[in-house]
Amino acid sequence: MNVHSGLEGVIACQSAISLVDGQNGRLVYRGYWAKELALHKEFEEVCHLLWYGELPTEEELNRLKQKFLEGRKIPAHMMAVIVALPKEMDMMSVIRTCISAIANESNEWPPTVEQAIQITALIPTIITARISILKGKKPIEPHHRLGHIANYLYMLHNKEPKVTHIKALESYCILTMEHGMNASTFAARVISSTESDIVSAITGAIGAMKGPLHGGAPSEVTAMLEAIETKENAEEWIRTKLKNGEKLMGFGHRVYKTKDPRAEALKKVTAQLTKHDPWLALANAVEETALRLLTEYKPGRKLYTNIEFYAAAVLRAVEMPSLLFTPTFTVSRVVGWTANVIEQAENNRIYRPQSLYTGVIPGE
Amino acid sequence: MNVHSGLEGVIACQSAISLVDGQNGRLVYRGYWAKELALHKEFEEVCHLLWYGELPTEEELNRLKQKFLEGRKIPAHMMAVIVALPKEMDMMSVIRTCISAIANESNEWPPTVEQAIQITALIPTIITARISILKGKKPIEPHHRLGHIANYLYMLHNKEPKVTHIKALESYCILTMEHGMNASTFAARVISSTESDIVSAITGAIGAMKGPLHGGAPSEVTAMLEAIETKENAEEWIRTKLKNGEKLMGFGHRVYKTKDPRAEALKKVTAQLTKHDPWLALANAVEETALRLLTEYKPGRKLYTNIEFYAAAVLRAVEMPSLLFTPTFTVSRVVGWTANVIEQAENNRIYRPQSLYTGVIPGE
Repeated sequence: MNVHSGLEGVIACQSAISLVDGQNGRLVYRGYWAKELALHKEFEEVCHLLWYGELPTEEELNRLKQKFLEGRKIPAHMMAVIVALPKEMDMMSVIRTCISAIANESNEWPPTVEQAIQITALIPTIITARISILKGKKPIEPHHRLGHIANYLYMLHNKEPKVTHIKALESYCILTMEHGMNASTFAARVISSTESDIVSAITGAIGAMKGPLHGGAPSEVTAMLEAIETKENAEEWIRTKLKNGEKLMGFGHRVYKTKDPRAEALKKVTAQLTKHDPWLALANAVEETALRLLTEYKPGRKLYTNIEFYAAAVLRAVEMPSLLFTPTFTVSRVVGWTANVIEQAENNRIYRPQSLYTGVIPGE
Repeated sequence: MNVHSGLEGVIACQSAISLVDGQNGRLVYRGYWAKELALHKEFEEVCHLLWYGELPTEEELNRLKQKFLEGRKIPAHMMAVIVALPKEMDMMSVIRTCISAIANESNEWPPTVEQAIQITALIPTIITARISILKGKKPIEPHHRLGHIANYLYMLHNKEPKVTHIKALESYCILTMEHGMNASTFAARVISSTESDIVSAITGAIGAMKGPLHGGAPSEVTAMLEAIETKENAEEWIRTKLKNGEKLMGFGHRVYKTKDPRAEALKKVTAQLTKHDPWLALANAVEETALRLLTEYKPGRKLYTNIEFYAAAVLRAVEMPSLLFTPTFTVSRVVGWTANVIEQAENNRIYRPQSLYTGVIPGE
């Protein structure tokens, strides 16, 4: 009776959406390198790729952008929910509750791309509306023209974002859209396999993303960089951590045993965009020192910089508050979740593993 | 590369909560036969067993009942959510959204029994409050004394329920509290394994329960019995179905290859309680005819009556509307979900299976 703790190494399904090749540091989305898509494509183009299986023609892209524009507005009943939720509720719980409150009878199984667009389009508006309401202000209406990610920054800062900021956040979002059978995507598939609606599946996935073992790391990297403060402090700070056997945030990944291709791509993006940014200079110095000291303290472990490390740099560069790091990860990952839910329905089988009973069996 | 479709036969974890022995038709809750518990114990006693690992002393039982009493009342912000949700939203989505709206900062990981009680205590009040609001009436306040299941019936029908009805529904609820790694329980464990809060885990489980492959069968049995209408029609109606290769609701189970012990226990309960009920007489006649014809049309398949069949009889006997069958299943199964979430935290490992990539790998 072999217990597969955490289901490590168990293949739970087939999927044409992504290949996560941790041994070789490769990430493929439907036949394309994720890092190439991140550098050269728009957010909506990659949405189209994940949902429909191919990159859009110009006409298809325009149609998809139009649907995003139409789907951005929060329905009145959802706004009432946002207002009703207690002030102290964290943002991930607010998103989870608002998505659960989508009341569309057409949201029945099997899931469709139209449903995926509806859910994806709403999330940035939910986040920014909640922030406005907490500040006692009127929510900022979605922009009538900007793309999905540009509009997110627009609603967040109440001004048209810089092109460099849009590109940086789009790259981050493209690189974090999809990543195989991580816990949230897997939860979405399990829920959907009962032929439940896509709203239920995504509500569950948001709940999984909320867990610090899943969606919580970039803000811990920011906290680390803030604690280190200057390049000069890096060596001593990191050395103390490693001596005490503590974990260094932003290094190592359960799946990648070599360079994380997403971290490499994001490093490129940040280098292009914020050449003279002191925060980026600090991040670079900390990375270099950390990799050197990790080799010293953990020889043979092969710990590489992971995506959270450069995610922290990008998110900070676009002036994203730490409290919105996991919600912003949700803005992107929902695309992968919905693509997986749609694929699950194409060849569905309900998930029903077993547990090994460790208790007593009574006498008959 | 062996793909474990639906994870059938894969052992995903160890658990001391229940043994589901489909080969021998046995169901054990923490060292006790579920059927014995259903016949001889109260709902709250079995809650105590699943959550704490043992049956309560009288004092412990009283303390638990007191906590249920205190946890029943819907907080003001949740009532605002119930009112805000559109009329056309189905009850499972309402429950999912209300549980997601629990805003308690103490709900952080690791999960506790206190949190489990809070969530469990609220569900019947959410269901009945929503019904009242849809009818334009003021929600009925929870009873100040009745037990959890009795109070559910009280709020539903606005009168103190018959003892026989309480016992019948309690037996149903005890028998459906827990059932190994079914899709909803498994979803709850996956979500919780990220160290997310219990509210996220249960919100996801409710979403899974909503799927017709999971929580939807008893109402289809009722529909079948209503269509058959009289004992005399049973043979012809069932024969036509089977000739056309259609599925008969209430027979066969993915796990049980012999008699479903829950169906047997519920049959006993209904027989004791509603001896002269015409609905029960019809159910008995249909069962007998169906089993005979299943042997004829599907020789060697060994299809036995499953729990949904007698669940339909019990739920109908206590005057539960069909639309509340799955919500009522939720009233009971939440006990198993929360017990599993608590157990998962005791020896946690994040669930991260793999998928087999079936797409193209680009040239480097």
